[in-house]
Order: sequence, then C-alpha cells, then structure tokens
Amino acid sequence: MAGTADFGLIGLGVMGENLVLNVESRGFTAAVFNRTVEKVDNFVKGRGAGKKFIGCHTLQEFVDALKRPRKIMILVKAGQPVDDTIAQLLPHLQEGDIIIDGGNSYWPDTNRRCREMKQHGILYVGSGVSGGEEGALRGPSLMPGGDADAWPHIKPIFQAIAARVSDTEVACDWVGDEGAGHFVKMVHNGIEYGDIQIICEAYQIMKDLLGMNADEIGRVFTEWNSGDLESYLIEITSEIFKTKDTSAPGYTVDNILDVAGQKGTGRWTVVDAMELGQPITLIAEAVFSRNLSALKDQRVEASRILKGPKPKVFAPADRAKFLEALREALLASKMVSYAQGFSMIEAAGAQFKWKLNRGGIALMWRAGCIIRSSFLGKIRDAYAKNPSLTNLLLDPWFTERMARCQDGWRTVVAAAVTHGIPAPAFATALAYYDGYRSERLPANLLQAQRDFFGAHTYERVDQPRGKFFHTDWIGLGGKTTSSTYNA
Amino acid sequence: MAGTADFGLIGLGVMGENLVLNVESRGFTAAVFNRTVEKVDNFVKGRGAGKKFIGCHTLQEFVDALKRPRKIMILVKAGQPVDDTIAQLLPHLQEGDIIIDGGNSYWPDTNRRCREMKQHGILYVGSGVSGGEEGALRGPSLMPGGDADAWPHIKPIFQAIAARVSDTEVACDWVGDEGAGHFVKMVHNGIEYGDIQIICEAYQIMKDLLGMNADEIGRVFTEWNSGDLESYLIEITSEIFKTKDTSAPGYTVDNILDVAGQKGTGRWTVVDAMELGQPITLIAEAVFSRNLSALKDQRVEASRILKGPKPKVFAPADRAKFLEALREALLASKMVSYAQGFSMIEAAGAQFKWKLNRGGIALMWRAGCIIRSSFLGKIRDAYAKNPSLTNLLLDPWFTERMARCQDGWRTVVAAAVTHGIPAPAFATALAYYDGYRSERLPANLLQAQRDFFGAHTYERVDQPRGKFFHTDWIGLGGKTTSSTYNA
Repeated sequence: MAGTADFGLIGLGVMGENLVLNVESRGFTAAVFNRTVEKVDNFVKGRGAGKKFIGCHTLQEFVDALKRPRKIMILVKAGQPVDDTIAQLLPHLQEGDIIIDGGNSYWPDTNRRCREMKQHGILYVGSGVSGGEEGALRGPSLMPGGDADAWPHIKPIFQAIAARVSDTEVACDWVGDEGAGHFVKMVHNGIEYGDIQIICEAYQIMKDLLGMNADEIGRVFTEWNSGDLESYLIEITSEIFKTKDTSAPGYTVDNILDVAGQKGTGRWTVVDAMELGQPITLIAEAVFSRNLSALKDQRVEASRILKGPKPKVFAPADRAKFLEALREALLASKMVSYAQGFSMIEAAGAQFKWKLNRGGIALMWRAGCIIRSSFLGKIRDAYAKNPSLTNLLLDPWFTERMARCQDGWRTVVAAAVTHGIPAPAFATALAYYDGYRSERLPANLLQAQRDFFGAHTYERVDQPRGKFFHTDWIGLGGKTTSSTYNA
Repeated sequence: MAGTADFGLIGLGVMGENLVLNVESRGFTAAVFNRTVEKVDNFVKGRGAGKKFIGCHTLQEFVDALKRPRKIMILVKAGQPVDDTIAQLLPHLQEGDIIIDGGNSYWPDTNRRCREMKQHGILYVGSGVSGGEEGALRGPSLMPGGDADAWPHIKPIFQAIAARVSDTEVACDWVGDEGAGHFVKMVHNGIEYGDIQIICEAYQIMKDLLGMNADEIGRVFTEWNSGDLESYLIEITSEIFKTKDTSAPGYTVDNILDVAGQKGTGRWTVVDAMELGQPITLIAEAVFSRNLSALKDQRVEASRILKGPKPKVFAPADRAKFLEALREALLASKMVSYAQGFSMIEAAGAQFKWKLNRGGIALMWRAGCIIRSSFLGKIRDAYAKNPSLTNLLLDPWFTERMARCQDGWRTVVAAAVTHGIPAPAFATALAYYDGYRSERLPANLLQAQRDFFGAHTYERVDQPRGKFFHTDWIGLGGKTTSSTYNA
C-alpha cells in the first residue's frame, strides 16, 4: 500500500521537528514517526496542528502513508541508532524506496550503508544538514550524497527547503557518491572548528594584549561583520559581546567557564587528514585547543608555576592600527584554513573517486550553515573560473588578499609570541603559508637523517624523481639499504 | 620434541640478522627460520658462520630446535604478514610457549593478538625495538609489553641484548599489558618525528635567516651536541653536515631532494592523540610538515606566486647571540614535545588500564634508540622524584629550563614569523606553553557561540562544574536546549 505523503521523517527531536515543518511549509505533505510515539501526538497536536502532517504510531502506518518511491529521512543520533532504525524500516520498504540519513554520521558508515542498501534495492542517501535548529526550520545548508538515482526524486524537496543564496541559487546540490555528502559535512564542521578558534584567538588578543572589555570587543566584531569577514559566526560573536548577564554583574561571556568539549567531526577531520596525507594544520590546532581548554585544573596549577613575559597592555592610542592588523590576521588565517579544507576535499575526491565539485560545495556553504559568509562566494567564484585550481591561495583574489594581509598578520603573531599570548591557529596558518610558498624546505636534512640511521635512501635534486640513493655517512654502514622493516 | 636453542627468530631481514647476532653474542643459542629458506643457509654460512645458530628449513624443525617454553621472535613486515606467520606457527606450538612480535605493529593489533593467543595458551608479547640496524646488533632499546607471564622467561635474554644505560641499568623493562609496548614504541617514533622536525627548523633558520653554509651549520650542531641537547640525532646531524658529496661539488645534504615520506607511526600517534583528547601539537606539525614537503611541485609553483617579506640575512656579527637563542628555542620546543608525549602516555595508561611507569619508559629510551639523549635522564629523574607528576614542565628542572630558554625562543619564533621562514613546530610548542600556563583561555567565547547557534549550554565560573546553563542570546530561542542531535 502506498499513500499520499511526499516525505517521511523518523525522529522528532528539535532538528527533526524543525526540518519537517520547513518541508510542510513548502507545500509538501509529510508523514512523521518517532520511536516514543507520544512525541508524534504532541507534535501533530502542537507545532504541527492544522498542517499537512500525518502522524503515525507504527512503521507500517508510516510507510503506508508515503507515496512511492518513498522518501524517508532519518534524524536520529549517529552510530548504532541509525543502523537500528534502518533494520526496523527495511522489511516495510519496496525496491526503489529512498532512505536519507540526515544526521551527523561518519562518512565510512554511510559508505557501508549505501552498499548494504543497494543489495536490497533501496536508494540510500547520506546528507549533511547544517544551520542548527534555526537553519532546519528556515532553510538549512544541505549536502546530499549517496546513490545518485535518488537525487531526481528528492531534489524538488531538498532544493525547496534549503537556504537561498540568491534568486537562482540554493545552498543544496548533489555532492557525490556514497559517503561524499557526509564527508563534506564533516569538513564543514572541521572548518567551523577553525573559524571559531581564530575568532577566539582574536578575542584573547583584544582582551589580554589590548586590554579591551566585552563592550569594546563586541563593537570591533560588529565592525568586522562587513567586508571580507562578513559571516554568521562574526555576527553572533558581536551579539554575544553585547549580552549582559542576568544572574551576575557584567557580561555573560565573562562568566562562562573556559572549558570546551570536542567530540566527533572536528577530530574526524584531522584523523582523515592524517590518512589522506593532507596538512590540515589549522583545524588540528582548533581541536588541540579544545583539548587544552579541558585541562582547566592543570592550567590553573601551571599558571602559578610556569613563567611568562611580563604582561604588557598596548596603549589605547596604538589600538586602531593593531586592530586592523588583527583583522588581517583573522582574514589571512581564514583563507589558509579554507585552502587547507578544500585541498583535503580535492584529495578525498581523487582518492575515493567521488567527482566532487568544489565550487558547488562552496555554494552549499554560502547560506544556511554555521560557516555561511560572503567569503564563500569568493571561493565559489575561484573554482567557477578555474575548476582545477591547485590551491585556493593561488587564485588571484586570494593571492592578492594574502599579500595585502600578511604584514599585519606577521605583526600580530610576533606580538602574541613576544607577549606570551597563545595564538596557535594564527601561527600555524602563517607557517603553512610560508611553507607552501617555499621552493625549498628542510626535508633534505630529514631524508639525510633517515638514510643515516635507517638506510632509508633519498632522492637527489640533480637526478630524476624515483631514483634512490644511499650514502655511507660515516664509513661504517656499507651499501646495504633498508628492506621492508622500517625502524 | 624440544631442543636446545634458547631463542628463535623468524624473519632474516637486516634487522632480524642483527638482532639474532646480538642474542648469540651474549651466550645464547638461537634457531633461525625464514620463509625464503635460502636466506637461512646464506646466514648460517655467512654472518652466522662458526656461531651457535641452528638454521631451520621448516617450521617443524624450527620449533623442535627450541627449549621449552619456546621463545620465538617474529621480525616481519607489520600487518597481515604477522598474522600469517602466527597462523603458520601456532599448530606447532605448545601451551606456555612465547611469541614475540618485534616489528612495528600498530598496538590495537597487538591487543587483539594477545587476546587470541591467550585462548590458545600462548604467551604473546609485542615489543618495540628501536635503534635501527646498528642498534639491533650492538644494543637496541627494547619495549616489551603483553602477557606479563612471559616476562620472567624472556627477561634474561632481553636485558642481555639491550643497550646499557649504566653499569646497573639497561634500556629495557616490562612496559605493561597487551599492546602497551607497541603503544610506547609508537609514541617514541612520534617523538622522533618531532625531534627531527625541530632540528630541521633550526637548520632552515640558520641557512635562510643567518645565511650559513653546511660547514658552518655542522659546526653549530657539533657544539650543541654537549650539554642539554646532547643526543644521537644532533650527533648524526653534525656528521651529515660534514659529509662532502661524491658525485657533485659541495655537501651531500645540499643535493638531497626536500621531499619526505610519512607513513605509519607518526601519523598513528596523532590519530591516537585525537582519540585520547591529548594536545600532541608538535608531533602533529612534524607529520604535517612531511605532508607539505611532499607537495614539491605545488611549492615550486606557489613560490613564484605567493608574496613574502623581503629576504633579510642577519649580519655575521649578530649571529652568536641569535644562535644561542636558537639553541634555546630547540631545547624549549623539545621539552614541550616530550611533555606532550609523556602526557599522552599517561592518558593512554589510565584509559587502557596499563599501569605504565613513565620513569621506566624514559630509561628505556635513554640508550639504544634513535631519540637517545642525556635529556631523557632528566625525564627519568623527574618521574623518579614524583611518579604522579601532572606534566613534565612542572618538574623543577624543566620549569627552570623553560624559564631560562623562553626569551630566546620567543625571539626566534618572532624572527621566523617576521621574515617569512616556516617554523611550525617551534611556534606550536610555544603556543602550547603559553596556553598551558593560561589560567583563562578564550574557550568561554567558544562555549557562548555553541550555545548561541546550537543551544549546547555552558558551565559558569561562579557555579559548580557539571551545572549547565543556556542563554536566550537574542530573545528568539526560548528555553530549549540541545538534545541528542549535535549540529
């Protein structure tokens, strides 16, 4: 039996509720199901009252309510709950039906589920959904990947509910095969970690080096939220610094504990970068900074033991110029972070044969999601002009901005280093920039060392690549080179 | 049937040959086997001629030659070859026999094999072996872990062949349960990546900022190879810079291609640090630097496009002072790297219930292995004085050295940043130092942002830990907080 609903949703958490309200608001009828069935009734009588929802108490009711091919989104906690939900749903489905996992699943799981579902004739989609609860309701960024045969069926709904970039463009397009959508969402979240980290570093420098208070800092972020840095995260940062505490004097932000959690997508991004051999240094520093923040008790102890430079607060007269340098440091670091992220996407696309469109991905992130910004429009333009661009920094717009920002950036990092303020993401981004533009890095010494202690051999600058040489450095080792055992 | 040999070795590569020659030289009889049996004959007639070796052409011969409980070391390529060798060997063994994997296996594999072998009554040991080919022959660092019942049987052989630290101390002790030995070896290799990276950064600064040639650089490393930096890696670095090329004018090191490989243990260390939530920033930068070195063609292209500061070479008159600062930068960065590594070991020990002795591990690395140094004696002393030391930097010797080195360190990083020379490991180590000694980090803003866009809640400085708060930042979100779905 098949019914009249255009779309089905399993999992009525806040994200699920908001997303399905968004779907209904675009003229679609939606069936909803939840393991705890009271949630279904509460929703249909509550936020869903008077709307085109079909509340279902059993999975059989739910699938019977859906038009074929059924389009069913699952929005449950990543991991085992996704597999459990699929297992319960599968016996009720028919060939050609579509399952969409809209949660934050790790992409290798999505690869696996795609293959498993293909054997059952089910079209499986793993879709990144970003924008938080508000985005889900008003227009998220959607990054669907998986079985491409599903796309024509879900495209009208997905592109109707997604955030709009312009009259003709939406923040949703097909990403690629298997787990490509969840992979791209993971990198999005990694980049989000990075964006947040560099904003935090700018904040700490304003607070500890320039001696600015929350109100002054907020005004700087408000000013920065135009031009190249215009973005949702800068916008909410400026709002945060305006917010007075309701239970204590002063600003809320000053009373929040400086301990951050990190689980999931930021960490996954770094692990995958390691596997792909990609230097995704800024995101790594963002994850490590969260680790370090969590060691609060150790930091309190260490702050009393480990020496640093005498604190020096800049005179307000010097502030304006330094703040412009700080804006440049933030922008330059951000450009490096996105260059690293898009290089990683390119590497993954090549390795997993996903045919990713980097310009299209920039457009998906242009609106709706947490990292949305005008800056992503520039990235989109760069890849539109040159789809095979080696590195974002080599696009003329980025090259020029980097050239313009770098003096200020160097000033800020040097000042942080000199005055004892941690700015790991600013610093690593700058080291990447200087390393990437180095024709010659010191890895020749590294290769010499490995040949010295392990006979690992090396290539030469005056010989073709792929020819390996060994030196008997101190006349003891002879001509033997390293075999399969690598010490 | 059981024979007369004290020790058996499977895998006659260069490492295997050298290790078993070492065993024999200490008065033990050794049986040897290799899949390609000609290697057995070649060895017994060649390097092993006239010595107490029993060359075996079949596994049955091999096990029959060994005293019970049999002590069999496997030295084959990590991964499937280890499992294959175990599977072939197992039918020939008896309860209580001991298998030792002396290769560079990833420790979760060793965990698994320990459990599998326990079911067969076999005592399984995974042992890190470091020191390269020369170490294997003359005295390696050995890091055995696994089934503790094996230790009394193998201890006399292991401690006889290991490098000697002093008359009473050797670079070998029992590490802990299951894969603990291979875990510690992995961290050793990660630290080796870090040590090599910081030496490379010092080299690049000498070359590109101080304008020094190979000969001058070599003399600096020779000088540094006394005092706090005395170590095998500094020693071989000084030898490398003395080595004239035999096929081109000048020094060999200048003609080596600046492209490094990275596979295995450095990368694993970073992946595990991510899982353990440990900020192992310096090793991560070392891995990323190898990734970046591999992008040679891109770097050549980028060097022509991306702008940097005008090159500035220090006058030789200012060199001496700057070189002392550089020595301090190298030492301080090294102290941070080891503090990070030992913190990771502590975290793993706690998480996996391995009861690791950090002072004992420092002693195992004190001699024989690639990172051997006098510095490791200081680490050993620090944990001997205070086995529950929170962080190596909080030991008085390290605290004092950090305080003494930090001005020079800051000078060097600021100069690198200002003059466009990449020094990512120096810089991240400094950011870690400044972050670790920060009572207050900017993660309060991060928590505010996450609460703003995802209702993730936060803790407060004026409330007990574990109490979570949510702010309706701009009067739109209401009181709902994030549920299980994390955007």
